[in-house]
Amino acid sequence: MSFVDILTRTAERVERRAEALLPLPAGPEGQVAAAMRHAVLGGGKRLRGFLVVSSAAIYDVAPERAERAAVALECLHAYSLVHDDLPCMDDDSLRRGQPTVHVKWDEATAVLAGDALQSLAFEILAHPDTHPDGAVRAALCLDLARASGQRGMVGGQAIDIAAETAGSPLSLAEIGRLQALKTGALIRAATRAGALLGGASVEDIEALDGYAEVLGRAFQIRDDILDVAGDPALAGKRLRKDAAAGKATFVSLLGLDEAARQADLLVAQATARLDRFGAVADPLREAARFAVARQS
Amino acid sequence: MSFVDILTRTAERVERRAEALLPLPAGPEGQVAAAMRHAVLGGGKRLRGFLVVSSAAIYDVAPERAERAAVALECLHAYSLVHDDLPCMDDDSLRRGQPTVHVKWDEATAVLAGDALQSLAFEILAHPDTHPDGAVRAALCLDLARASGQRGMVGGQAIDIAAETAGSPLSLAEIGRLQALKTGALIRAATRAGALLGGASVEDIEALDGYAEVLGRAFQIRDDILDVAGDPALAGKRLRKDAAAGKATFVSLLGLDEAARQADLLVAQATARLDRFGAVADPLREAARFAVARQS
Repeated sequence: MSFVDILTRTAERVERRAEALLPLPAGPEGQVAAAMRHAVLGGGKRLRGFLVVSSAAIYDVAPERAERAAVALECLHAYSLVHDDLPCMDDDSLRRGQPTVHVKWDEATAVLAGDALQSLAFEILAHPDTHPDGAVRAALCLDLARASGQRGMVGGQAIDIAAETAGSPLSLAEIGRLQALKTGALIRAATRAGALLGGASVEDIEALDGYAEVLGRAFQIRDDILDVAGDPALAGKRLRKDAAAGKATFVSLLGLDEAARQADLLVAQATARLDRFGAVADPLREAARFAVARQS
Repeated sequence: MSFVDILTRTAERVERRAEALLPLPAGPEGQVAAAMRHAVLGGGKRLRGFLVVSSAAIYDVAPERAERAAVALECLHAYSLVHDDLPCMDDDSLRRGQPTVHVKWDEATAVLAGDALQSLAFEILAHPDTHPDGAVRAALCLDLARASGQRGMVGGQAIDIAAETAGSPLSLAEIGRLQALKTGALIRAATRAGALLGGASVEDIEALDGYAEVLGRAFQIRDDILDVAGDPALAGKRLRKDAAAGKATFVSLLGLDEAARQADLLVAQATARLDRFGAVADPLREAARFAVARQS
């Protein structure tokens, strides 16, 4: 089976699990439930879900548990996209080839659906079905809360908006920090979630943390490359945004060729962090290669 | 010491703990940290924090633990206010006598500060300093997530907005359901948090749940009364909103006198639920009386 097949199958399993865990629209509050489903279901690579499932597979974690945690990470990711797409943030009307939540419904529904998706992520992780040991569930919640808060994803988005408002492009180091927070923190939390579910050793978790950190950087460089050189029809979202906004990115500072070269170097580094694991970590190794080869 | 003195002292302790737990503004993401502090610190009755601390006191929970959980509940409450005040929601510019976050900064900062406050609430609850037993921490997270999500607080706000958009006033039963979700769920979570920290029996938790449910209704009726008959200078927020918006409330449906009578009946019911507890539950009993006597 090719890697894309494995990725697709995993995405389908996570999708089915999400379908069951998301609230069904009912009553006057049903519109928010419908918006939550729109934001999470129906597409996307589910990279974060894949990382949870693949790191959990190293430890033979029961599929149901891994998939529940994968859905939690995807809900958290989806909430961040719904809020980032708002008019007061990045003001995007297209996502995964579909209208964004505030376009399909309205801004209030987008704010509320995002808020409820964040709550749902913690509800899923804290539920006994995710793991019988409360300490593991609490650790999952703590990790996700740190990755998503002011010192994580929200902090990264805040830096991004501040830079745009100030109109002074960021340096390479500043972009590195921004991206480590904005996308890196959640990618790391996804990989750690699988390890926590599997009762991984401190050394294993350190290795996986290192892998995820480097993977996150490679992933972001590829995003910057696709924003400049990608096909909007394949991406399912607006491209050329950063250049239009005069934003500094890895590509604007390094050029396309050097950015691609650095992404390849990072892939080699990421896979090297997995040397302590056997063939069971192959999906994670392939995920790193995929991160810099993908077209969307 | 009078009840207002006890309430004030508890609020001060929760305030100091919040001061220490909220991130300090630093770096380009510091504006979000400043907005989070603005939203949480400097005032408010801290009713939710008081309920956590007072229910925990029944079980002699260590003050630090109870205060951490109290701060988590206050962060969750503050996030809901920041988002509810947004132009696309209730569009309020004044809160606790201060400009709301989107007025003092901007809408993007208000969305992000609210998002980060929700994350922080779970980060605090999931941290080992809140309780040594991971199962208790996970239970606290699960409870809060349920109270805040689409089947809780967010669901209530969604019903509220849907009713306003539809322009058809709600019935008494519908308002009861709306308020049970919008404010009741979090008040119940606050009371439960203290009980969970204290290892309360199922019977105790049931009694406290019943108390909190009735208290939430009494609290909301008083809010509706204050919206009509309160002093804006004491309230520190815009009043007469519901009448201006043509919204059905307990007061518009029952009249001021009958609403006040029902609130008093609910106080009697709430305190009756506490009969199994001795004098140690007196602050909870007084909180119920305060809920319907307060001017702000």
